[in-house]
Amino acid sequence: MRTMLRAEPKMADMYSEKFRIDGKRLWNSLMDMAKVGATKKGGVCRLALTDPDRQARDLFVKWCREAHCHITVDRMGNIFARRPGIDNSRPPLMTGSYLDTQPTGGRFDGAYGVMAGLEVVRTLNDLNYKTLAPIEVVVWTNEEGSRFTPWGIGSAVFAGAYTLKEGLSCKDVEGRTIREELKRIGYAGRRAVSGHPVAAFLEAHIEQGPILEKESKTIGVVNGVLGLRWYDVSVIGRSLHAGTTPAKLRRDALVGAVRIIMELNNIGNMYQPNSFTTVGELHVYPNSRNVIPEKVNFTVDLRHSEIAVLDAMENDLKDAIKKITEELKLKITIKTVADMSPTSFTKECVEDIREETERLGLSYRYIKSGTGHDTCYISRVAPTGMIFIPCKGGISHNEKESAKPDDIAAGCDVLLRTIIRLADGKGYVL
Amino acid sequence: MRTMLRAEPKMADMYSEKFRIDGKRLWNSLMDMAKVGATKKGGVCRLALTDPDRQARDLFVKWCREAHCHITVDRMGNIFARRPGIDNSRPPLMTGSYLDTQPTGGRFDGAYGVMAGLEVVRTLNDLNYKTLAPIEVVVWTNEEGSRFTPWGIGSAVFAGAYTLKEGLSCKDVEGRTIREELKRIGYAGRRAVSGHPVAAFLEAHIEQGPILEKESKTIGVVNGVLGLRWYDVSVIGRSLHAGTTPAKLRRDALVGAVRIIMELNNIGNMYQPNSFTTVGELHVYPNSRNVIPEKVNFTVDLRHSEIAVLDAMENDLKDAIKKITEELKLKITIKTVADMSPTSFTKECVEDIREETERLGLSYRYIKSGTGHDTCYISRVAPTGMIFIPCKGGISHNEKESAKPDDIAAGCDVLLRTIIRLADGKGYVL
Repeated sequence: MRTMLRAEPKMADMYSEKFRIDGKRLWNSLMDMAKVGATKKGGVCRLALTDPDRQARDLFVKWCREAHCHITVDRMGNIFARRPGIDNSRPPLMTGSYLDTQPTGGRFDGAYGVMAGLEVVRTLNDLNYKTLAPIEVVVWTNEEGSRFTPWGIGSAVFAGAYTLKEGLSCKDVEGRTIREELKRIGYAGRRAVSGHPVAAFLEAHIEQGPILEKESKTIGVVNGVLGLRWYDVSVIGRSLHAGTTPAKLRRDALVGAVRIIMELNNIGNMYQPNSFTTVGELHVYPNSRNVIPEKVNFTVDLRHSEIAVLDAMENDLKDAIKKITEELKLKITIKTVADMSPTSFTKECVEDIREETERLGLSYRYIKSGTGHDTCYISRVAPTGMIFIPCKGGISHNEKESAKPDDIAAGCDVLLRTIIRLADGKGYVL
Repeated sequence: MRTMLRAEPKMADMYSEKFRIDGKRLWNSLMDMAKVGATKKGGVCRLALTDPDRQARDLFVKWCREAHCHITVDRMGNIFARRPGIDNSRPPLMTGSYLDTQPTGGRFDGAYGVMAGLEVVRTLNDLNYKTLAPIEVVVWTNEEGSRFTPWGIGSAVFAGAYTLKEGLSCKDVEGRTIREELKRIGYAGRRAVSGHPVAAFLEAHIEQGPILEKESKTIGVVNGVLGLRWYDVSVIGRSLHAGTTPAKLRRDALVGAVRIIMELNNIGNMYQPNSFTTVGELHVYPNSRNVIPEKVNFTVDLRHSEIAVLDAMENDLKDAIKKITEELKLKITIKTVADMSPTSFTKECVEDIREETERLGLSYRYIKSGTGHDTCYISRVAPTGMIFIPCKGGISHNEKESAKPDDIAAGCDVLLRTIIRLADGKGYVL
């Protein structure tokens, strides 16, 4: 049992109209940051710890210093820009995200959370407002995982999910380690990575899905992250000539795969809402027009907010496979290749975000994140919450990724208000 | 309307026990021929007009000359080994097949029909039996089509389906033409390709399917070849993140493809028997585990013995696609890439084969060939029939291809009896 103690706002002037971030400044910073590693198609390629990533980090550090922050870098290359509070013995209120991108990434994924944190600092500077606890804007190393596996290794080591040694030993496809690359770009810091008390961690992020846009909501109050299970399924039949083998004598691996995928869809529909089933990758062998497929390998991606439901979905899938195996005389194997439990964000933190969103008069809905974030790792060691804003068409990890300036500003206003409330409040006793 | 006049056997001694082929000699010839281009896994690689094909042709010609046949080669490289009859003004009774193979072909596909023809000649020699009409054992050029497209071009030009110029201009992937390669291997003959009267053409062949084996029948009396239609289907949806896009907001191209393939199976089942539906090739884009498929391209192979049913199957498929397009909000296109009408072999010829099969006391069934053969082309200019024998597991175009010596002998006995009957009879007036 945990005792709930919600952060209480100093009812000072934080609800006056001047406590608003500067949307135009935030937008311009995002656009300036997007120039670093800009692609021809309007996206960004800033793989972790490459030269463009260094340039982005340098730019962030420069802007933070101009905003009177104190910069520290830890041994995983995570950057902390600290704005002192009134009582600096208090654990900091952290916010931030990351600056690395997918190979053909967009301008907002990651960068938004970092720039929103900086905009909060700038706004507080403009207001000449000092929070009780210090604030730290963080850039986590290698969130995307496009260059180094696993994804989110910077926040993972911070939260103790991996050791520092494991983190620094991650290699890219050419065999270069994070250790070497941090040194090369000048971000092998000295600060210890783990063991830091954190008052709370908040992350603003684009939704990367279509729900907010579809429902015309400005803010997604994220209350957790879906659990995920990945499977590899292999269906083995018999390869015979398409023109000479009657249906009843066939053992067609693709027909088996198709039956499983239909069942998977039914399973997905059965456990709505918060149930996601996808077959994203599928390979047919020998993959020839007039040859009955002998083998089909495909992936299954199951997501749900409840472990018990994930278990039920997995059982249903395995039952369906068993039935189809017998009916079609196929050999079917299923192997689990990833299993991540659902994450629940801190209830009090989520409610504080919701309350500030309501006070700002913004439309919102609770939402589950369907994809992992640094905040998932940080939730192991600190109270956490996330703020989603809509992105165009739900498109992300894509050069076409886009978000509206008004939504970007709105999410940052929610972040500002919640940060002040948390940094000035009594903190959570969880 | 055509007048039916069945070939009538001279009721001489052709039904005595001595009118049997030598199964052991036939098997040994097949095994000797299989050494030419033999692969390590027990198959054969003898692509058309390569050096192994030349060696196989040379061996055939040598054996035929030893059997007192007169060899001619036409300008398409088709080889004719003629055993004179009593009345050489009569059009010849032809039999044969081809000696080229798939890259990883078997020992029987094609070679069986050629060696069976030679064995008939050898048997008649042993019996010192002279047929009324001459007999010609034929080797057609490039049946498989593995090296030169289209398949069956040797018999196609013979039957006037393509011009000689078209035939000789076919190129392999390296740009070498049939014309050049025939010259290179010494099989650019002088005989005119088309315009030859043929009393009838018979072809013995392994089934290349599992039906005879499954039903324990020794002989397949082939009464025709299924019509075939090939389509390319493209399903276009929207590529979004697998973890963030709820089912109702998805336009998953793979789910669309899966629905179509299920419908296609239903269509196949609805029009049994002689109905074959296959999706052999399928490609998913971007084909990534956690990305909803944006595009799926796949092939459809429809076969049936009746044009009207092929039309109905095509209509049903298009209706299903229309429905799925609307339901799942996908863009789906379907394009016909091949359309071959069903072939019916000459009824009288088929019945003569059946009667000789029955007289030999062999089990049999009528069967449709699901795949094209030289006989399809020849049926445009002559009465035709085919004799199938079982092959192990229905496997063909594969190094594992296998057939039983007893079945091989039985099929050749049917060929011997039918050839004598036809070569001695009055011929068909069609």
